[in-house]
Amino acid sequence: MTAYDIIMKKRRGSELFQEEIEWITSGFVSGDIPDYQMSALLMAICFNGMTSEETSALTTAMINSGDTYSPSKELGRICIDKHSTGGIGDKTTLIAVPICAACGIYVPKMSGRGLGHTGGTIDKLEAIPGLRTSLTHNEFISVTREAGFAISGQTGSLVPADKKIYALRNATATVDSIPLICSSIMSKKLATGADGIVLDVKVGDGAFMKNYADAEKLAEAMIRVAGLSGKKCTAVLTNMEKPLGMAVGNAVEVVEAIEALKGNCPDDLYDISVTLASEMLFLAGLGSPERCRELATDALSSGRALKAFEKMSELQGGNSKAFYDYSLLGVPTHTREVVSDIDGYISGISCEKTGLVSLALGAGRKTKDGNIDPTAGIIFNKTVGDFVKKGETLGRLVTSSDCDIDAAEKDFIGLFRFSETAPEKIPAVIKIIRS
Amino acid sequence: MTAYDIIMKKRRGSELFQEEIEWITSGFVSGDIPDYQMSALLMAICFNGMTSEETSALTTAMINSGDTYSPSKELGRICIDKHSTGGIGDKTTLIAVPICAACGIYVPKMSGRGLGHTGGTIDKLEAIPGLRTSLTHNEFISVTREAGFAISGQTGSLVPADKKIYALRNATATVDSIPLICSSIMSKKLATGADGIVLDVKVGDGAFMKNYADAEKLAEAMIRVAGLSGKKCTAVLTNMEKPLGMAVGNAVEVVEAIEALKGNCPDDLYDISVTLASEMLFLAGLGSPERCRELATDALSSGRALKAFEKMSELQGGNSKAFYDYSLLGVPTHTREVVSDIDGYISGISCEKTGLVSLALGAGRKTKDGNIDPTAGIIFNKTVGDFVKKGETLGRLVTSSDCDIDAAEKDFIGLFRFSETAPEKIPAVIKIIRS
Repeated sequence: MTAYDIIMKKRRGSELFQEEIEWITSGFVSGDIPDYQMSALLMAICFNGMTSEETSALTTAMINSGDTYSPSKELGRICIDKHSTGGIGDKTTLIAVPICAACGIYVPKMSGRGLGHTGGTIDKLEAIPGLRTSLTHNEFISVTREAGFAISGQTGSLVPADKKIYALRNATATVDSIPLICSSIMSKKLATGADGIVLDVKVGDGAFMKNYADAEKLAEAMIRVAGLSGKKCTAVLTNMEKPLGMAVGNAVEVVEAIEALKGNCPDDLYDISVTLASEMLFLAGLGSPERCRELATDALSSGRALKAFEKMSELQGGNSKAFYDYSLLGVPTHTREVVSDIDGYISGISCEKTGLVSLALGAGRKTKDGNIDPTAGIIFNKTVGDFVKKGETLGRLVTSSDCDIDAAEKDFIGLFRFSETAPEKIPAVIKIIRS
Repeated sequence: MTAYDIIMKKRRGSELFQEEIEWITSGFVSGDIPDYQMSALLMAICFNGMTSEETSALTTAMINSGDTYSPSKELGRICIDKHSTGGIGDKTTLIAVPICAACGIYVPKMSGRGLGHTGGTIDKLEAIPGLRTSLTHNEFISVTREAGFAISGQTGSLVPADKKIYALRNATATVDSIPLICSSIMSKKLATGADGIVLDVKVGDGAFMKNYADAEKLAEAMIRVAGLSGKKCTAVLTNMEKPLGMAVGNAVEVVEAIEALKGNCPDDLYDISVTLASEMLFLAGLGSPERCRELATDALSSGRALKAFEKMSELQGGNSKAFYDYSLLGVPTHTREVVSDIDGYISGISCEKTGLVSLALGAGRKTKDGNIDPTAGIIFNKTVGDFVKKGETLGRLVTSSDCDIDAAEKDFIGLFRFSETAPEKIPAVIKIIRS
């Protein structure tokens, strides 16, 4: 077996054997296969794709590079995981997962940090003072047992192959390949060992998958790979043509999530969060999809989901008073209220650019090791479909960072597209694909 | 300008700007662009190709990495070069170039060594005792002036970009891409600065281009790149479905070339050598193609071409007695005569495998720095189209190396395909494409 032959085989469009994929992946991780051979192979994969079996073999080879977990064995109860492909204003984990916990299933969740214009759940959670996201394995398990869920950062020993391959893809323009995205996501999800996985596959301008066809392909690829590993998996395709909810940032998104758990939730955020929670409950075997939806809405409206979040926060060291006094999440030193200078319906809000404005305000990480400003972000007052009068507030920009707020205001206004008539409503949940 | 953007642009199938190609090529040569980005770009080029303008820009960028020459300025006369894409038993340089020299044109020729199953002109020439192929530039020019031609090895300062890119292509399965092959060949040919170039593009099992369509594409790409550099260029597509001539090796090929110059030449070798020489003379402006062919055949049949070769050999330090006493080229310590065990027409001789038998006998270089046995090789007694009786000699294997001659004999017999009726004759020269 040689790297040359494997690259050539993929270049010719043939299917690689499982042994070949294992051999080159482990060789790359150990340093025996040089970067330049791996990047050539990755580019060939971008052009010729991979079958489900190849993608599954790559996923398994990546998993084998690091530690794996079996939380349901340790906890003695079914564990369900959730993953989002990433979007703007995506705080659904902070709503859907407490709902699931309140319904009695376990969600031991490892999450990532944000990079660039998309945020990460870990960064958002850290806006709660004291809340620790670097849990030991024992803490992670015991918080899950007590609160129903725990959220911890990914450790370096979770799929080190993914870190190494992703860094190479990021330098060689080979990121956007469905089998490579699929193996990157699924290797981490499968290594953490949940019994079922619900995937929130975002579609639109602010998402990784810009169009429906690609999102569906990715969703189906991930479901097949999960199936080949004997795991149940559901994908929910959701709209990312506008920022999700009304807040984009860290503390501001935590506030929006807590408010949602208190019953004050924008429609799109509610639809997606409840759907994700329902599908998680369905995978856990709590009944029909309709029954699971009832369970989810009840856990939310009864306030039990909020209690689950408070419990988890407390166990992870967070100051639970912050759930009732948002000033404890930090008060931004600068607030800029931005008003509309025209009348009209908001027909669109540029989603990816919203992430860039939030990044500019300090809410995101410009480089891998950069700092974030937890108080920074955007709170929209109006969203797509709303009618705005001249002089009405479009939203507020908040920051405690040394940033160019005038430029951010200009860019913020530029996010909005207006029309004379009400735009057609796009559903928040586009499609549910069950395995 | 970033390497990432250039790779992505090529991955998306867009045409790169000249500046982008120059920037990434010079950055790669200087070490600023890492191997893994270059190999990703090379793979994207394999899939999406390059326009003539891009290929020309790459060729120029590669040329600019090293020294360039203008021999016609130094010599005060038109200089013509010749290049072969490489085949088995290809000693045409040793026949066509002396013919051109005998017709009064200058051919200052830089040649390569062989690697693997294909031989190199430099290795063959070095079978002549004393003949030096590492000439200083002044020697190279003065031998050309006196003998009409000189043949020297390529120096490290001739297109260093090609060496670096080729090594990477060779490790990443990105060798067989027409724009990359084209830029590799043409950068070296254009850097050596001849006024016109005749390309012998081999087609068939023993050649780099396995089929006619690819060979024609490569030929046309090279002619276009030459044209964009203001050079005249002709491509001759020739048959490499069988070994060229009757000898494969080093000393044995030198003997076949000298015999050809003495008037004893197998048909296919004669056709190709005279055609290449005629086209070189045509590019030099010595008349119509028909007139140039007359000049070439006359230079050959009169013995003037042989004299030119002797003169060049003498000036490069070779023992010219070897032209008349072939034992001075070395006598192999082992000779194995191989006879046929069946009656029949020879319908084919596996060409690439002939190279491998020759390599096994010691005539080739297994690794880049390996040694070769100048006496080793194959002398065919019979060729494609001949009728052979059981017990008749098919050929002789010669070697002075410690090799498994029994295995070589078995493989040699395996080269032959037989039929009951005479096979259709394939012309040696398939097509001439003039710019």
